Amino acid sequence: MFKIEDNFLLNNSYAQKLYHDYATKMPIVDFHNHLSAEVIYKNEVYSNIGQILLEGDHYKWRVLRTFGVPEEEITGNPDYEQLFYKFCAIMPKLIGNPLYHWMYLELKQYFDTDIYVNEANARELFVHCNKVIAERQYSPRKLLDMVNVESLCTTDDPVDGLKYHILLQAEGYKCLPTFRPDKIINIERSGYFEYMKQLETVVGFEINDRQSLIDALESRVKFFADNGCKISDHALDLVVYNDDFSSVDEIIKTQDASKLDVYKTFVLSELAKLYNKYGIAQQYHIGAARDASQSKFEALGPDTGFDYISDQPFIHNLASLLSLQDKHEIPKTIIYTLDSIYYESIATMMGCFQSDYPGKIQLGSGWWFNDQLDGMKKQMEVLSQMGVLSLFVGMVTDSRSYLSFPRHEYFRRLLCQHIGNMMNDGLITTNIEEIAPIIEDICYNNIKNYLSL
Amino acid sequence: MFKIEDNFLLNNSYAQKLYHDYATKMPIVDFHNHLSAEVIYKNEVYSNIGQILLEGDHYKWRVLRTFGVPEEEITGNPDYEQLFYKFCAIMPKLIGNPLYHWMYLELKQYFDTDIYVNEANARELFVHCNKVIAERQYSPRKLLDMVNVESLCTTDDPVDGLKYHILLQAEGYKCLPTFRPDKIINIERSGYFEYMKQLETVVGFEINDRQSLIDALESRVKFFADNGCKISDHALDLVVYNDDFSSVDEIIKTQDASKLDVYKTFVLSELAKLYNKYGIAQQYHIGAARDASQSKFEALGPDTGFDYISDQPFIHNLASLLSLQDKHEIPKTIIYTLDSIYYESIATMMGCFQSDYPGKIQLGSGWWFNDQLDGMKKQMEVLSQMGVLSLFVGMVTDSRSYLSFPRHEYFRRLLCQHIGNMMNDGLITTNIEEIAPIIEDICYNNIKNYLSL
Amino acid sequence: MFKIEDNFLLNNSYAQKLYHDYATKMPIVDFHNHLSAEVIYKNEVYSNIGQILLEGDHYKWRVLRTFGVPEEEITGNPDYEQLFYKFCAIMPKLIGNPLYHWMYLELKQYFDTDIYVNEANARELFVHCNKVIAERQYSPRKLLDMVNVESLCTTDDPVDGLKYHILLQAEGYKCLPTFRPDKIINIERSGYFEYMKQLETVVGFEINDRQSLIDALESRVKFFADNGCKISDHALDLVVYNDDFSSVDEIIKTQDASKLDVYKTFVLSELAKLYNKYGIAQQYHIGAARDASQSKFEALGPDTGFDYISDQPFIHNLASLLSLQDKHEIPKTIIYTLDSIYYESIATMMGCFQSDYPGKIQLGSGWWFNDQLDGMKKQMEVLSQMGVLSLFVGMVTDSRSYLSFPRHEYFRRLLCQHIGNMMNDGLITTNIEEIAPIIEDICYNNIKNYLSL
Repeated sequence: MFKIEDNFLLNNSYAQKLYHDYATKMPIVDFHNHLSAEVIYKNEVYSNIGQILLEGDHYKWRVLRTFGVPEEEITGNPDYEQLFYKFCAIMPKLIGNPLYHWMYLELKQYFDTDIYVNEANARELFVHCNKVIAERQYSPRKLLDMVNVESLCTTDDPVDGLKYHILLQAEGYKCLPTFRPDKIINIERSGYFEYMKQLETVVGFEINDRQSLIDALESRVKFFADNGCKISDHALDLVVYNDDFSSVDEIIKTQDASKLDVYKTFVLSELAKLYNKYGIAQQYHIGAARDASQSKFEALGPDTGFDYISDQPFIHNLASLLSLQDKHEIPKTIIYTLDSIYYESIATMMGCFQSDYPGKIQLGSGWWFNDQLDGMKKQMEVLSQMGVLSLFVGMVTDSRSYLSFPRHEYFRRLLCQHIGNMMNDGLITTNIEEIAPIIEDICYNNIKNYLSL
Repeated sequence: MFKIEDNFLLNNSYAQKLYHDYATKMPIVDFHNHLSAEVIYKNEVYSNIGQILLEGDHYKWRVLRTFGVPEEEITGNPDYEQLFYKFCAIMPKLIGNPLYHWMYLELKQYFDTDIYVNEANARELFVHCNKVIAERQYSPRKLLDMVNVESLCTTDDPVDGLKYHILLQAEGYKCLPTFRPDKIINIERSGYFEYMKQLETVVGFEINDRQSLIDALESRVKFFADNGCKISDHALDLVVYNDDFSSVDEIIKTQDASKLDVYKTFVLSELAKLYNKYGIAQQYHIGAARDASQSKFEALGPDTGFDYISDQPFIHNLASLLSLQDKHEIPKTIIYTLDSIYYESIATMMGCFQSDYPGKIQLGSGWWFNDQLDGMKKQMEVLSQMGVLSLFVGMVTDSRSYLSFPRHEYFRRLLCQHIGNMMNDGLITTNIEEIAPIIEDICYNNIKNYLSL
Repeated sequence: MFKIEDNFLLNNSYAQKLYHDYATKMPIVDFHNHLSAEVIYKNEVYSNIGQILLEGDHYKWRVLRTFGVPEEEITGNPDYEQLFYKFCAIMPKLIGNPLYHWMYLELKQYFDTDIYVNEANARELFVHCNKVIAERQYSPRKLLDMVNVESLCTTDDPVDGLKYHILLQAEGYKCLPTFRPDKIINIERSGYFEYMKQLETVVGFEINDRQSLIDALESRVKFFADNGCKISDHALDLVVYNDDFSSVDEIIKTQDASKLDVYKTFVLSELAKLYNKYGIAQQYHIGAARDASQSKFEALGPDTGFDYISDQPFIHNLASLLSLQDKHEIPKTIIYTLDSIYYESIATMMGCFQSDYPGKIQLGSGWWFNDQLDGMKKQMEVLSQMGVLSLFVGMVTDSRSYLSFPRHEYFRRLLCQHIGNMMNDGLITTNIEEIAPIIEDICYNNIKNYLSL
């Protein structure tokens, strides 16, 4: 027996009031996810709960593997009904894991059920959910509307034509593109040469020196900005730094990856200028170690659940990078770390670059493996003590799943609990009227203003 | 006044029920410790509480030194009665330190006393304990039986003939050897040459290339497996990695420590294959910095209480090592880190190598300095959020003391508290019938199955 | 509405009793701060609350910048009345940040007011505080006396003549100098050459080899010791180590910064001998990354709020440095880390160097960014579990502000809460009579004895 009670995660009356009277009422701005504008535009009705829940969800895949489910049944040739049953059978053993709560939140929000998820109830649950899907004609946009998503930012490649973003925005649907130029930056990766050819085709000129690269970047940043882009994103698995730019022309011309530190520093620096010019915020996602198992990578490719938290120090290089950008004007910047041991370094470091706009530099919400009870709590605690919580731009799903938006509910409950605890413990004012606007800001207003939505 | 109450560490009724009705009833499998099969076999009766408590116990030595007790009285020429009095006098000042709880647990479990430990009561306590020892004829096996130790795994060198393990097992006593080939792996240490000579004598052939080393390893792994070995152990103070094995023959022949990264990677990789073949799990103990004080090391030797938590990053090399092993089949693996800041990296990284067997790769319980209230709690929290707690193989003493088994009680109380808190806080089912088997699994069943005991 | 209640931070009756009956009664020994002996000696009456609160306080500057207040208004040409109003307007948004509590503690202790600090009340508060300042003739010594500061240790350069320390001590005022030879140690910094010239002038001889440097160090250490110095301090932003001293003469003669690891190791090692000889403790402040923003550093100089927590590992070098000092006799040593992830490494490492004097090696209290609720709590938790809390020498302000002494109150409340929680949770004795002396020791007696005050 388990269900999400009204006051789930809300252990005192302040927290409860803040959540029920204020937090729940705010729309969602999901400013970083991996949803597909095309899928949202086409908006096809789903048919099968197993598929919605398990296809492409490497969080759940990892857990299935941990319980010894053969890879063939997970990614090889999955029967999603059978896999759904297996996942249900595992569920009671997932106490303490975020998937446990996410599952119940999803079932409650989208499927109006509190049924206990286990092996015995799996078949009944499967039938029930499929019935709801059919009756309510669940489609991507239907699911997004149900949880009050006001606007969302997908993750897009600079060469993307943004066809579906344009179509959606023409309908007044706020699906905004995010400029994510990882392929331009990762000069050491295979495929860089081919990618740059493609970029040349899109911009219509050759990229063979510093200026032509800047022009190409600006061409695409401008195109994105013209089509609703408010934010960019960068996966910096490592952070490198070298500001001796004398060889940049040569590096670009020869595509010489041996000086990737110079090249990457240069590109990130130029992008920062462009982001400022076009009113775009930047996100840095730092510290993922990807594709740990070589044999699994060869068999299954990237983004299949073989990533982990790196332990490489990066703070010094990141500070240098921001200092370089600070010589002009640093753009609005949100820094996410996969390793929570760096929250404190980042929270204090960002204090060195704050200026002009309240909360201009941000410590991003608990990312990926940290997107859970303890992880989100720790992020809020560090941000409170070493930064300014009230200016926080809040939660993102960072998800590939259209069912993952209850994570905003999870975040909001934890936020209200965090602040409610401070009230209850006599650490801050107990006047709800003074605290409620802070809740509303973190849930919604801060990010809306931050991105000028 | 202090005593271990029935509900010590158990702050809610769920935790209390889980502990008293389930956890306490499970036998102990202490699958990693430094006890001596010879001492257990010979099973001599003790005579003196001071000696049992203080001889060889570098945890207590460190505390005595911290209070300024001269080294001469600790390790030089100790009078264990006087030293016992000094330790008792210090006890009230140890609030918050695990030794405080361990002492009271030991006195309660083995000596039926709740006397407050301080300078005034020291003499009375000394007399009482010695009386109990004499009356009950306390010996190693007597102490182990009292706390329901069903089986235990000592730590043994590959050249060991396992005489006393064999004798004990012949009596049906489950004292199993652990294969710990540190001396084969640490090519850079003085004594490597002599040790390899000894190994050659034991296996009966020369070790001068890749194949003969593999043969020697297999010879000893097989011997251990034939004599009850279910698990191996490796002290990886640092983790190195280099998979360019072209020079391995040369390195082995010349005992060239300059390429220790290649050599160690090779040996660990070959051992993993053998562990798979012979059904042996592997343990990695990572991140101890040993013998910090050179002057004390010269005076007292190793394992005398001069070790600490290293801060060297190791995650990337460890992932590479596991990826290499994963090309064949990775053995069951338990990873311990001395630095708790790496719990999250390991918990997420092990998710990249799970397959076949539920919980095949494990985050080991709080090790050494982390074997205390906050450390064990943190390990469980991270494992819950970033791994799967219910598959955890649980606690080990890792101890040299025959009195240290109450640490299993300590662990079990904290486990029940951790899970009881989740029940009490509405985070998981409150149905005891569903949770009890998870408690029993973590205390006993998981490790029993994991090691096919 | 918010005010500091009597039982602020004290959530159970044990904590309350320990704090109100014992902790509050102990005098303050603030053994590390950046106050000015000259200012204390001259003891001029203040005129303006805005100036007292905001001038030179880079904690508050950082927050003002985070809220977008222009630099010109903060450090350029500040109008302290207007800036005070801005800070008051921000205060309600600082929930969770230590500045929130510090402000209310300061207003309560020095200005007898519980007024809620916000934009609306800012003017009234400004007038009130200025009235109190005028009525009570608030001056540095008046402020220090109000909170029962018995002695304090400023931070001083080896070439300082200590004129005001001498004058103050002549009046019986315990304002003691701290020997902080950073400028002698940082051979790589610009200004080293000029500084060493100055040092030569002060000591009266040339410094051109190992022995003359040692003589110069001894000359100044002795001068400081003769004038009340009990403690030294070192800002080790990084910790380097190299004990190959063969080139030391050459390095000193040529001021060759390329071998700074050798030079620094040598100087710190020689200083340790001198500290022992003259009965001076040493403090190491490790891990600050300073002046992150180059453009702000060029505009505003050092110590203006652009520092952060470094992520560079240093434990191994630090252990080597202490091991080297341990060959003679290691002085009393207090180690502070700016990155709290190293608390555990330090707490265990210091256990390797304890001897002779109870708590000889110390884990310093939560420093700088860690000088807040969670940070101080974490330091006490780690020290409890991995060291010996009862021997802790306690709190320092490390501050430039004469109003910052309520941080001792903050610390004492958290200490009583930490220990009171253990009592309340059944983890230690509940006998107040046994615990009270430990509280008194940590608040006062330990440091008094440690420094032989």
